[in-house]
Amino acid sequence: MRAIYAGSFDPVTNGHCDIIQRAARLCDELVVAVLSNPAKVTKFTAQERLDMLQEICKDMPNVTIAAFGGLLVDFAKQQNAKVIIRGVRSAADFEYEMQMAQLNKELDPDIETLFLPSDVGLTHISSSFVKEIADFGGNIGFMVPSTVLNKMFEKNNKL
Amino acid sequence: MRAIYAGSFDPVTNGHCDIIQRAARLCDELVVAVLSNPAKVTKFTAQERLDMLQEICKDMPNVTIAAFGGLLVDFAKQQNAKVIIRGVRSAADFEYEMQMAQLNKELDPDIETLFLPSDVGLTHISSSFVKEIADFGGNIGFMVPSTVLNKMFEKNNKL
Amino acid sequence: MRAIYAGSFDPVTNGHCDIIQRAARLCDELVVAVLSNPAKVTKFTAQERLDMLQEICKDMPNVTIAAFGGLLVDFAKQQNAKVIIRGVRSAADFEYEMQMAQLNKELDPDIETLFLPSDVGLTHISSSFVKEIADFGGNIGFMVPSTVLNKMFEKNNKL
Amino acid sequence: MRAIYAGSFDPVTNGHCDIIQRAARLCDELVVAVLSNPAKVTKFTAQERLDMLQEICKDMPNVTIAAFGGLLVDFAKQQNAKVIIRGVRSAADFEYEMQMAQLNKELDPDIETLFLPSDVGLTHISSSFVKEIADFGGNIGFMVPSTVLNKMFEKNNKL
Amino acid sequence: MRAIYAGSFDPVTNGHCDIIQRAARLCDELVVAVLSNPAKVTKFTAQERLDMLQEICKDMPNVTIAAFGGLLVDFAKQQNAKVIIRGVRSAADFEYEMQMAQLNKELDPDIETLFLPSDVGLTHISSSFVKEIADFGGNIGFMVPSTVLNKMFEKNNKL
Amino acid sequence: MRAIYAGSFDPVTNGHCDIIQRAARLCDELVVAVLSNPAKVTKFTAQERLDMLQEICKDMPNVTIAAFGGLLVDFAKQQNAKVIIRGVRSAADFEYEMQMAQLNKELDPDIETLFLPSDVGLTHISSSFVKEIADFGGNIGFMVPSTVLNKMFEKNNKL
Repeated sequence: MRAIYAGSFDPVTNGHCDIIQRAARLCDELVVAVLSNPAKVTKFTAQERLDMLQEICKDMPNVTIAAFGGLLVDFAKQQNAKVIIRGVRSAADFEYEMQMAQLNKELDPDIETLFLPSDVGLTHISSSFVKEIADFGGNIGFMVPSTVLNKMFEKNNKL
Repeated sequence: MRAIYAGSFDPVTNGHCDIIQRAARLCDELVVAVLSNPAKVTKFTAQERLDMLQEICKDMPNVTIAAFGGLLVDFAKQQNAKVIIRGVRSAADFEYEMQMAQLNKELDPDIETLFLPSDVGLTHISSSFVKEIADFGGNIGFMVPSTVLNKMFEKNNKL
Repeated sequence: MRAIYAGSFDPVTNGHCDIIQRAARLCDELVVAVLSNPAKVTKFTAQERLDMLQEICKDMPNVTIAAFGGLLVDFAKQQNAKVIIRGVRSAADFEYEMQMAQLNKELDPDIETLFLPSDVGLTHISSSFVKEIADFGGNIGFMVPSTVLNKMFEKNNKL
Repeated sequence: MRAIYAGSFDPVTNGHCDIIQRAARLCDELVVAVLSNPAKVTKFTAQERLDMLQEICKDMPNVTIAAFGGLLVDFAKQQNAKVIIRGVRSAADFEYEMQMAQLNKELDPDIETLFLPSDVGLTHISSSFVKEIADFGGNIGFMVPSTVLNKMFEKNNKL
Repeated sequence: MRAIYAGSFDPVTNGHCDIIQRAARLCDELVVAVLSNPAKVTKFTAQERLDMLQEICKDMPNVTIAAFGGLLVDFAKQQNAKVIIRGVRSAADFEYEMQMAQLNKELDPDIETLFLPSDVGLTHISSSFVKEIADFGGNIGFMVPSTVLNKMFEKNNKL
Repeated sequence: MRAIYAGSFDPVTNGHCDIIQRAARLCDELVVAVLSNPAKVTKFTAQERLDMLQEICKDMPNVTIAAFGGLLVDFAKQQNAKVIIRGVRSAADFEYEMQMAQLNKELDPDIETLFLPSDVGLTHISSSFVKEIADFGGNIGFMVPSTVLNKMFEKNNKL
């Protein structure tokens, strides 16, 4: 099974890392795909987010990192991935993801979406909370891997 | 019973069409009201959205199309409509619609809000998903009536 | 429009009364239908529940009270009602009602389900809470009409 | 990947069949496991439910049918399945399934739970609704495969 | 502030212990109240549940253990507690608790209900899951304090 | 117990006033803290919002009004408040508040978050609805205290 796990990863959180590790164990090959959408303002450039993921996944032989624009189903097809992996944390997350999965099924019936339930200790972590807390000088060490912690620190100090 | 079904309709989806058809069967007269809010950026102008609806409802003798600004309860009163019709797709939709309905009841106790549950095959369709998918060149043929499909195509090609 | 509002009404609450009054204003004729299911243990017999509703609706000329067993869509058809009215109080209510409405649509495509949002001050009232609180001698005066209050009192004192 | 899809299947619905077909395409091997819990009253015996599934899955070479009691994680381990597949239809479903998945993770960290989002046209179907509607003589043909339809009919006529 | 934290505690879980410890730090005095309802089947007798809590709270000087029947607001008043503490884990929990809190406010406007959000690592734990898993011989060590673990073991072996 | 109740209060609603009054009765001292975030566009300046609250709370001897920027847990600590009070109205509110409370617990384990369930008649009121309705000339008298009503009126007429 070749699967794709896509997101903005702005920045990568411990929640993302948990999904990547679990998905990599389940799949033969996993593509972690960074959404590069020029219309969306991000804290980190697509290249910076690719670099973070490359660093984090460097010891996972069946994980590839890639950037994409456009529709996820199109990129999944191009990557020969038959499965889209999504992490879900809450009922609100779920309702949105359910609609996306059903739409993607209509866009390409050959591609399935699988939801991985968030680890019980990680349901409160999200990229937006990471940025919000870091912007006010709060501790984000429990939310992101150390490589991201350093990059957030550099980024915020440069500003 | 004279009722009003209001929305941005930016653009009209198959979900909207389903609600219009079902509401038109239930009511003596149905006003489909296009919200024209200059402060909000829309893909289609109010006139374009009125034209779409006119085309779609042309064979429904008890349906009138109108544009409005301001509060829906004020426009409903002006139109002699005693009922506001709303489509609901999900629990998240419902919580927002519940608050709106209760507020509208306080603003004008003579006007009732009725929720029509989304058709089981249409719960994943929304105007924002239509625009998002069309912007990336995805197929939206299963989400909108053919007249809207053409107009989306023209609009996106002109840009 | 001829509509049906069905329930166990065991007992009738202020929430039910609010829906009946609002539905009676919306519809030409309203049938309030008491579910009589011998397999279900109820506090009040079907006859007692019919009597309560008869008393409560005695001044509403367009409201009829009836008992039914079996499927609601079958009884609705037999009663020439094209609309099923349901009150909804919470997101949990909504998800259940949504599934029921979609099933009833498949069982009889000619019958529509309409949801009336609960009045803002009545979202916490339900027949089960009424019974639970009354069983422990609590005040239920804010939850039920006076005729029901008396009948609950008699019923609990007889036990 | 060897996965397990467990349930009461009392009876098997079109919702279950959809999940089985999609899961069978995703996995190398799929075990469909019938919960046989003597403490729980069911309409069909465990053997009858096994037979239904056997019939339904007879042309799916990588699907095995089995009965189990006790904890699902124990049976999964015994079956060498590393993945538990669950279908999810609604936010309410999701919250319950999330808790179960997180508990199963603690009971056996080697076993992952994957959620498959319900097909958009099947979110309103459940075994309990099938039984409830069939008991009142309603049409369940749109909810179950034909083999189950026949067995429901025989079962209800024998009573 | 004198508060009350009531429940069935059948049995006490780590989730309950977390709420008790946090509530005891917040309040001057905390009454932990065991619901003793003869109509409800429980695994442990009211006395056994009182003993468990006594053991668990023995080093918390401001915590008292008590049994009660009837309405919680009546017992709270009798105990001079102005505050009811409730733990909440999920959106489903929340909707039920919200209704209960609003009812209790009408039954006694002097008594407030406060919700404590479940600890992020304990949202999946409940007494019913503890019993279900233990009945099938599963490990419940991560869900209950050691004193409860022993009592569950004795209870299940005696059966 | 010294607690903090923070928000944007843009403007103060009857929902906020209800929480302030109830929290002030529960706590020895209550700090009502106005979020002053220069990056966020508000209808009223921080000073105007402070003035509103000062006026509304002028007869509550144990309530202090303050402005803050940055992280709430940092301000709570600086104010010696051990408790953060939050009002919750709906399941959607709850899920967001749950995540925030769990994050704040990790940022400062000494600070607890308590949720007060919204009064049953005030669940539909929010600052954004107040602004939206006032902008269209609707009646907001049932949503805000009279002092805010006047200030909204002045503000909208000045524009």
